[in-house]
Amino acid sequence: MQKRIGKQTVRLQTPVSILATASTVGQKEGDGPLGAYFDVVEPDSMMGEDSWEKAESRFVAKNMELALKKANLEAAQMDYVLCGDLLNQCIGTTFGIKDFGIPFLGLFGACATVGEAMSVGSMLIDGGFAEHILCGASSHFCSAEKQFRFPLPLGIQRPQSTTWTVTGDGAMVLAKNKTGPFITEITTGKIIDMGVTDANNMGAAMAPAAVDVLLSHFQDTGRTPEDYDIIVSGDLGSVGHQIVIELMQKEGYDMQNRYTDCGLKIYDPNTQDTHAGGSGCACAAVTFCSYFYPQLKEGKLKRMLFLPTGALLSADSVQQKLPIPAISHAVVIESALPNERNEKRNEKRNEKRNDERKSGQVNTV
Amino acid sequence: MQKRIGKQTVRLQTPVSILATASTVGQKEGDGPLGAYFDVVEPDSMMGEDSWEKAESRFVAKNMELALKKANLEAAQMDYVLCGDLLNQCIGTTFGIKDFGIPFLGLFGACATVGEAMSVGSMLIDGGFAEHILCGASSHFCSAEKQFRFPLPLGIQRPQSTTWTVTGDGAMVLAKNKTGPFITEITTGKIIDMGVTDANNMGAAMAPAAVDVLLSHFQDTGRTPEDYDIIVSGDLGSVGHQIVIELMQKEGYDMQNRYTDCGLKIYDPNTQDTHAGGSGCACAAVTFCSYFYPQLKEGKLKRMLFLPTGALLSADSVQQKLPIPAISHAVVIESALPNERNEKRNEKRNEKRNDERKSGQVNTV
Repeated sequence: MQKRIGKQTVRLQTPVSILATASTVGQKEGDGPLGAYFDVVEPDSMMGEDSWEKAESRFVAKNMELALKKANLEAAQMDYVLCGDLLNQCIGTTFGIKDFGIPFLGLFGACATVGEAMSVGSMLIDGGFAEHILCGASSHFCSAEKQFRFPLPLGIQRPQSTTWTVTGDGAMVLAKNKTGPFITEITTGKIIDMGVTDANNMGAAMAPAAVDVLLSHFQDTGRTPEDYDIIVSGDLGSVGHQIVIELMQKEGYDMQNRYTDCGLKIYDPNTQDTHAGGSGCACAAVTFCSYFYPQLKEGKLKRMLFLPTGALLSADSVQQKLPIPAISHAVVIESALPNERNEKRNEKRNEKRNDERKSGQVNTV
Repeated sequence: MQKRIGKQTVRLQTPVSILATASTVGQKEGDGPLGAYFDVVEPDSMMGEDSWEKAESRFVAKNMELALKKANLEAAQMDYVLCGDLLNQCIGTTFGIKDFGIPFLGLFGACATVGEAMSVGSMLIDGGFAEHILCGASSHFCSAEKQFRFPLPLGIQRPQSTTWTVTGDGAMVLAKNKTGPFITEITTGKIIDMGVTDANNMGAAMAPAAVDVLLSHFQDTGRTPEDYDIIVSGDLGSVGHQIVIELMQKEGYDMQNRYTDCGLKIYDPNTQDTHAGGSGCACAAVTFCSYFYPQLKEGKLKRMLFLPTGALLSADSVQQKLPIPAISHAVVIESALPNERNEKRNEKRNEKRNDERKSGQVNTV
């Protein structure tokens, strides 16, 4: 079977199961519209530590342990752990997972990291190199603000185009297994640099990367937005979300009715003062793990196109007036395998026919 | 065929060809013992740029273009580019490769990055997801000193246990191809934290990670050091190299005669004032690409165990007095496939017999 189905897209020979997910967030995320969906809301965003970086590592450690627990598996059963974060040299990840004893492949994809982890993880499983892989991504509002923008105690006013870095960790266990939902296709993004230099408008910087991976995905697969129940970008927020709709419209794709963004879902714009929405590696990770995964599991969503988005900047690159290149990695997640879907559709049709028959509406053929 | 041959090791079903390598370094590296082996020695370590970070990106861009050229391939023929560096948010990589238009999977493995790139790259090719992958790693003395230690103009005295970050980029093209040398096995490392906190003694911090991956590799494969023509760690320098020999001795493995370290090869300790040796992502990458690869290509080395080593620290983690966790990823590279090796051995034996026959030393059987 040909796994590569276009310049940027591969189709897994054996779809990879997302066996379990876990999401642990801070209080602000817990107070938002998705509050009831998260596994754990931590009231203390310091997690009992004396630095924000150490706190982020605690989120990683606790949440990854929870993902293992929910999958009924031990760390020793994981063949690899694939994850990353936004901190310099990914120390949020390192100090979070260092005692797990799992072979570790560190990733850096900025806020697209969870998409990269799902991509590489499912290819390693489908390629025959692993049975179980733990993957995820984390971020922390305070460690990110300190590192990328201003020291928090300065109380700098934030422009309306800024987004709010999500505090938390989203993790999942991928498995060579027959339980849905499944990762079925992967479209790996290229770096897109449109020359945007405003680090307070990440949505605008990242939207072209989301559009690029969407166009590549539709071209490689021959599909259109209508082929998905939902298309979800990572952390473009209201500004970037609107840009994607407009740019895709110009390319002849109507995204209006089935496209949303994790950064739009996670905070309440009217009460939470987060301006353009949520962002950070954890934004896509915790929203997928808490809110979308159960809908795929229950079959309420049949096919989702998930495209976490990342801005590849650093404080140094901003100070040196370099542009903000961006990337987005798209992953197709399906609630059931194609033949299972057909079976379920048949079951439902038969049920409906039986109901209709009972109520005397139709005769059997 | 079973690809997983132990807890941490996989054996590729179809060994992956290292089609070509390229190495571009700064003048100090060019003045060292390996000077004649590098493809390009850049006399200006600023590369005409106005910042060290931008200079590092120029090393990445120029050298990766050279690797493509040496492989007689275009960027458009690469299915993925896998690479990383030491800078915050890996901007050396991002701004180096951003215009290549190749689907990008960013890696962070500190100075073990080139080993991680070779590992993931060869698994993606053997798994059927790619034909060609560009991979590599970079570092720059000035950008690394500024970020991890002290501003260079301060002229801070360096302890004898410090190593010197290599300026340069090492890159290679991996391919589904029948030309050796080949990557045949991969042992992915775990994070090892022995509590070392001295950021001026990275060799001591990383040596236990090298030992851990060596022990895992020998256990998984049933081999001993004698099964390799050479075993090469990434950037442990003289201090870490000696620790590895001693720790392995305690475990019953004699490493003395066939073990070296890229950090020991790249500078002349007597004339170059680099103290414990070379380090940085580029140390293992350029030494492999320039010095060891040709020896594998020519068959002078038949089987090499290459284990780049990485210290997973940041300036923040050091300031917060956290220990320095480390990781090492081992890759087996063989000059020819087993059956080719046998054929070559037979050829040589036959030649020898013919020579002996001609000189009347032996009778044919």
